[in-house]
Amino acid sequence: MSLDGLRVNGARLRESLEEMARIGGTRGGGVTRLTLSDEDKRARDLFISWLKELNLEVSIDEMGNIFGRRPGRNNDLAPVMSGSHVDSQPQGGRFDGILGVMGALEALRTMADNGVETLRPVMIVDWTNEEGSRFPPAMVGSGVWAGALDLDWAYAKTDVNGKTFGGELERIGYKGPIKAAQWPVHAYYEYHIEQGPILEMVKKDIGAPKGILCLHWYDIRLTGTANQVGPTPMEGRNDALCAAAEMILAVNRLPEKMGGNMVATVGEIHNHPNSRNIIPDGVHFTVDIRSWDDELALKAWDVLAGEFDSIAAARGCPMEKEVTWRVEHSPFDQRLVQRVLDKGAALGYSTHHMVSGAGHDASYMNQVCPTAMIFVPSIGGRSHVEVEETTWEDCENGANVLLHCLLESAGEE
Amino acid sequence: MSLDGLRVNGARLRESLEEMARIGGTRGGGVTRLTLSDEDKRARDLFISWLKELNLEVSIDEMGNIFGRRPGRNNDLAPVMSGSHVDSQPQGGRFDGILGVMGALEALRTMADNGVETLRPVMIVDWTNEEGSRFPPAMVGSGVWAGALDLDWAYAKTDVNGKTFGGELERIGYKGPIKAAQWPVHAYYEYHIEQGPILEMVKKDIGAPKGILCLHWYDIRLTGTANQVGPTPMEGRNDALCAAAEMILAVNRLPEKMGGNMVATVGEIHNHPNSRNIIPDGVHFTVDIRSWDDELALKAWDVLAGEFDSIAAARGCPMEKEVTWRVEHSPFDQRLVQRVLDKGAALGYSTHHMVSGAGHDASYMNQVCPTAMIFVPSIGGRSHVEVEETTWEDCENGANVLLHCLLESAGEE
Repeated sequence: MSLDGLRVNGARLRESLEEMARIGGTRGGGVTRLTLSDEDKRARDLFISWLKELNLEVSIDEMGNIFGRRPGRNNDLAPVMSGSHVDSQPQGGRFDGILGVMGALEALRTMADNGVETLRPVMIVDWTNEEGSRFPPAMVGSGVWAGALDLDWAYAKTDVNGKTFGGELERIGYKGPIKAAQWPVHAYYEYHIEQGPILEMVKKDIGAPKGILCLHWYDIRLTGTANQVGPTPMEGRNDALCAAAEMILAVNRLPEKMGGNMVATVGEIHNHPNSRNIIPDGVHFTVDIRSWDDELALKAWDVLAGEFDSIAAARGCPMEKEVTWRVEHSPFDQRLVQRVLDKGAALGYSTHHMVSGAGHDASYMNQVCPTAMIFVPSIGGRSHVEVEETTWEDCENGANVLLHCLLESAGEE
Repeated sequence: MSLDGLRVNGARLRESLEEMARIGGTRGGGVTRLTLSDEDKRARDLFISWLKELNLEVSIDEMGNIFGRRPGRNNDLAPVMSGSHVDSQPQGGRFDGILGVMGALEALRTMADNGVETLRPVMIVDWTNEEGSRFPPAMVGSGVWAGALDLDWAYAKTDVNGKTFGGELERIGYKGPIKAAQWPVHAYYEYHIEQGPILEMVKKDIGAPKGILCLHWYDIRLTGTANQVGPTPMEGRNDALCAAAEMILAVNRLPEKMGGNMVATVGEIHNHPNSRNIIPDGVHFTVDIRSWDDELALKAWDVLAGEFDSIAAARGCPMEKEVTWRVEHSPFDQRLVQRVLDKGAALGYSTHHMVSGAGHDASYMNQVCPTAMIFVPSIGGRSHVEVEETTWEDCENGANVLLHCLLESAGEE
């Protein structure tokens, strides 16, 4: 029997996405399903009930990562895997993460509907704490599983209320019995919304990222001199917020200055004492630099750090610069990326070879096994917001591409 | 008997200041004595006990303003008044406000020690909520008393925990029986630390401000477009924090651009969602403009607002500009200002004619009666911070000037 004609059930995929969107659903049409919250637990419970309906072998590891395994004809062969995450940003969207989990589920359901037997086992996964908004940093479940991050370090992370990751994992009943450690995987596909405006701009249905940009995070802390604003002349002020403002603009100009593929952003700022009639004496802000070219990103930091030094000196504001996190750019497996493009084309969709600016669990999986991603358009390029939107047709298209990529990889000797 | 030789007791003044500094004292050597807090209540109780030791007639009005009256030979004549405030900024200094209250107390104690009889009554006052840091805006007790602010409006103000000014006033037992409404006053003197670096710079003992700068407050709210930073190209971003950064620097450049006597500051900023990997979609910041020249300050706002419009348009960030508070510059009574200079010189101190950049209760009193202030140096110009410092010698000097100004005014027909 040829599997080429197989198609997912778009209506069923939509129903599953809509049912998930009710868990932690917000008035603004988004979801708040922070990792290890009660909402996360409910989403996990629902997910597992669906896995069991498919008779998958369900297992949960000590990081709370949930796996469902569909046996193949030869179960000694390494499985093919796909999934993403059910957790969300605070007031985030109803596609980010969950589409990749529900898409993989729909692919497995379609296989079951049609009695498809694969050579290799096929596994679906929900990775714990991809977002990192409650327990920074991001992608911790896949990171520990891949061996890139430490289990106890992850357990010790605290949220703003002082609750620990380990404690919350136990509280919702998802500290599983099996070790969070990688096993051989034949291929990993992650299906996700693009989270950017490119596919919409170039008017393509399916994106195949050649990999994920490097991600460099920095934390800057400036010290000024607090004084009542009225009696303190402009000359001789050490205004930490003015220094920060100059630096924020330097970050914003950095990509144009460096050339090449790069984005640079200040997303977070804390000002002290933050009183309208006191000159700011302490500012903490973050810098996020991403590029396909790790060397360019490092060089950009050198340039930026030099500018920061000059600004801090001119403003008389002592400064601390911290390198908070650096993840190298992650080039995906070329053969699998090409497969995404080919399967997309074979299904009659227009495709686009691109990069992923956002980090994904696929980034850590790429350290373990051949990996690729499948992107579908984000309307207006919006994500991490309640109005995040992708058409149901695009959701279905991506799931079809995923289905055929999984079938192809699962049939490989 | 000639009163020219009278001097305050510097050691006693210091002791009173030190005793007050223990109420709400912070580890860093400052005080946190927010208006209508338990600490404020304890400071008020202590203050009243001292007024009673001097047999002053104590009264409390419905705003919690505390008055102590020392009768004169002719109590039909309008009294001479002096005082300031016992409340402080959060982690503020141990001189701001309290020096003017303890200085007036020391002057009254010195009169009592020496059996001085004055023609007019002399009154001491502690104004409620000068700082405005718990219940903005500032100078509310004197403002209501002077008739410039509304009592019920003040009562309805809430702190960050939702507690009302009226409720808290009642809770600490300082909602007094008498009406908060002005009565005739012959002269008002307010003794205060300078809160700026000028006296230290020009090496003078006593400052006599010709008045208080105008004070214009604005609130700016910018709207951007939130997106995941990685996949969103630099082109086409609507980054509200970048727009704010440009505006903060425009504020900082404004005084030099406009010329004349002016300071302009952004002290407060709130960024949304304030997450390191999301482009900011909402920034609220404040602008504080002060000048001796009201017209110049208004013209400066016009110039600034134009710059803001251009920046907001270029960044694609819609903006709301709010005029939050405008107090005109307040020129003090020239005769009383000259008296401060003369009495200072007669006492052997060096004096300086200047302006006050900070607002004071004297600003509202200046609408009621002839008013002047007496400044002593702030070390390093620091104030509203724990390290705020003035030498004990300077504290004593200022109290001597106040004593002789009060004696002179209280002797006038």
